[in-house]
Amino acid sequence: MLARFLRPKATVSAHCDLPCGIYDPAQARIEAESVKAIIEKYESNEDPVFRARALIIKEQRSELVKHHLWVLWTDYFKPPHFEKYPQLHQLFNEATKLAGATGTKGGVDTAKADELLAKIDEISKIFWETKNA
Amino acid sequence: MLARFLRPKATVSAHCDLPCGIYDPAQARIEAESVKAIIEKYESNEDPVFRARALIIKEQRSELVKHHLWVLWTDYFKPPHFEKYPQLHQLFNEATKLAGATGTKGGVDTAKADELLAKIDEISKIFWETKNA
Amino acid sequence: MLARFLRPKATVSAHCDLPCGIYDPAQARIEAESVKAIIEKYESNEDPVFRARALIIKEQRSELVKHHLWVLWTDYFKPPHFEKYPQLHQLFNEATKLAGATGTKGGVDTAKADELLAKIDEISKIFWETKNA
Amino acid sequence: MLARFLRPKATVSAHCDLPCGIYDPAQARIEAESVKAIIEKYESNEDPVFRARALIIKEQRSELVKHHLWVLWTDYFKPPHFEKYPQLHQLFNEATKLAGATGTKGGVDTAKADELLAKIDEISKIFWETKNA
Amino acid sequence: MLARFLRPKATVSAHCDLPCGIYDPAQARIEAESVKAIIEKYESNEDPVFRARALIIKEQRSELVKHHLWVLWTDYFKPPHFEKYPQLHQLFNEATKLAGATGTKGGVDTAKADELLAKIDEISKIFWETKNA
Amino acid sequence: MLARFLRPKATVSAHCDLPCGIYDPAQARIEAESVKAIIEKYESNEDPVFRARALIIKEQRSELVKHHLWVLWTDYFKPPHFEKYPQLHQLFNEATKLAGATGTKGGVDTAKADELLAKIDEISKIFWETKNA
Repeated sequence: MLARFLRPKATVSAHCDLPCGIYDPAQARIEAESVKAIIEKYESNEDPVFRARALIIKEQRSELVKHHLWVLWTDYFKPPHFEKYPQLHQLFNEATKLAGATGTKGGVDTAKADELLAKIDEISKIFWETKNA
Repeated sequence: MLARFLRPKATVSAHCDLPCGIYDPAQARIEAESVKAIIEKYESNEDPVFRARALIIKEQRSELVKHHLWVLWTDYFKPPHFEKYPQLHQLFNEATKLAGATGTKGGVDTAKADELLAKIDEISKIFWETKNA
Repeated sequence: MLARFLRPKATVSAHCDLPCGIYDPAQARIEAESVKAIIEKYESNEDPVFRARALIIKEQRSELVKHHLWVLWTDYFKPPHFEKYPQLHQLFNEATKLAGATGTKGGVDTAKADELLAKIDEISKIFWETKNA
Repeated sequence: MLARFLRPKATVSAHCDLPCGIYDPAQARIEAESVKAIIEKYESNEDPVFRARALIIKEQRSELVKHHLWVLWTDYFKPPHFEKYPQLHQLFNEATKLAGATGTKGGVDTAKADELLAKIDEISKIFWETKNA
Repeated sequence: MLARFLRPKATVSAHCDLPCGIYDPAQARIEAESVKAIIEKYESNEDPVFRARALIIKEQRSELVKHHLWVLWTDYFKPPHFEKYPQLHQLFNEATKLAGATGTKGGVDTAKADELLAKIDEISKIFWETKNA
Repeated sequence: MLARFLRPKATVSAHCDLPCGIYDPAQARIEAESVKAIIEKYESNEDPVFRARALIIKEQRSELVKHHLWVLWTDYFKPPHFEKYPQLHQLFNEATKLAGATGTKGGVDTAKADELLAKIDEISKIFWETKNA
């Protein structure tokens, strides 16, 4: 029960290109968590139909990770952010690559999913610093 | 700064139909927050190009709210949940209607967006109760 | 030739969220018929390329079944219908589950496709009763 | 009540590119009926939010008409059909144009929607002749 | 370096249904080149995960070929073009079939991809003749 | 006729995330040309239905520009490219912003479309230099 009370309350989040002003790295992280869970289930289930489905869905979910990250990079972050955090471009480039052919799309390696989640976490920290600035 | 440390850490989340087992009502809420922000910006900006864009995007974001809620209703919730929470069917039906033609899609009324957010909050409470059960 | 004259003439149908007022359970049924045919073809063809394609397409067509049913449940049916047909919520929930991971998406079992078609038929009967009321 | 018993029973229908073998011009007709209903509602409602929404949705539904017709033309009809019905290419070309910029997408003219429905009806007649051959 | 200077400069292009007036068969050709490359990579890589991904993506890219060709056939070409080039209907019908179940979607045969590219090239020649007329 | 012979012949191009290895900035440029043409047509046509359609389609085409550029930035360009062209990150960030809310999505200004096209041209030059290296 305690866990429930400690659950996120406030996560406001974000993304349309009106822009509505609502952005949240949680969108990318949720899809990346999904990708990781899919890989784990793939590894522990040898049924060919299940495995084919896992690959189909992993492809879609990895694409969603890329999309949500691209939106943050282009739509949320502004020149002053890139000045203050000079690593930001490379961070996004590496994170989106980790959700692509050389990352979670291209294989079934949970280590890649963990690296992806770690990059999203780094982005998330910077995001919230700029949001709370 | 404090706010940042109190930010959600653990939000596990959810949704593909493998199923990966990751579900999170935050996905619906983020889109609904976006819908509300769009309506507010629409109200305070009379530029016809801006207003047309706001209506186009509100249509898409409201559809996403419906989609995320439908996924929870069909994919996450199981018969025992519906027995324990007999109001759940109606709750989802009303919430998805509130994101449709008689709700946030059909007009530019922030009250509808608030009602929608309140319904999503009710769903979210039940979701986390079942998750932490 | 006779068969052709006995073919449906009038099926008006339905679904956008303007709403345009045009709804028709035939949309869900057509996709479900497709899902069933895909499963049958999968069973009788062991070529791995064909089978991979069948699984990819079955995933999409099952998703369309779910979508068309969700639209009917949220957009077409109104509170008085749910009062008159108290089984309607559960019927839709079961039907959409039958097109998901525990149904036609999750496997290659024609029995699941038949169950899905039977549920859509039940929904269809109620739909036309309310339409002709 | 009688009307309900006279309703279509058998409409099998069609379209995926496995191919599953299920095709049905009803899919195009349903979307075209929707387009017509949208135009009628547009004409009788001067609220600018409603009208903007009608145009957004009409664009999508007209695109669906085109898509369903293209699928029939490319995937269902075979060389012997085109030999037997030499008008078929032009019929499809005109029908899809009627759902485009010079037809229901480009304006709010119910006459265009009626022309489109008539073309779909012609296609439908030929479709069922070949199906029942 | 020379190659770069000889690169296309003027590429006129094409496609939305406003219509914006910008059309270009290069869009279909790019996707068809992609389909061919996917088939070649599929043939030379026996890893099952890679092969499953190749089939998933080939399905999508073949669909894009069909879509871009359909748009040219319906939206760009007008009655006088069809009079001047009476083979045009059949050419488009064959090209789109070559990207479907009996062509690049249905198998992993580079010959089919080459036939598809040749058809697109024929269409492209006619397109540019009409454009430069 | 001469113009036709001078037309691009070889443009190989590119983009799926297998990866198939086929990439081409022409995809982004074609959509950007479309966006520019839409804005020009918007400016010269005061019909409200036409203008609403132009805004709807401009939104979609601008999104496609962003998507094609993101794909190049994440999938085609590798660390050595970013070392050799240190301006590349910023160039892509500015180009995608020019297709967004502060650029061609947000207004009806042909100057923005021209700036966008110029940025895509810069990217294209670098792309072909790396391709021909």
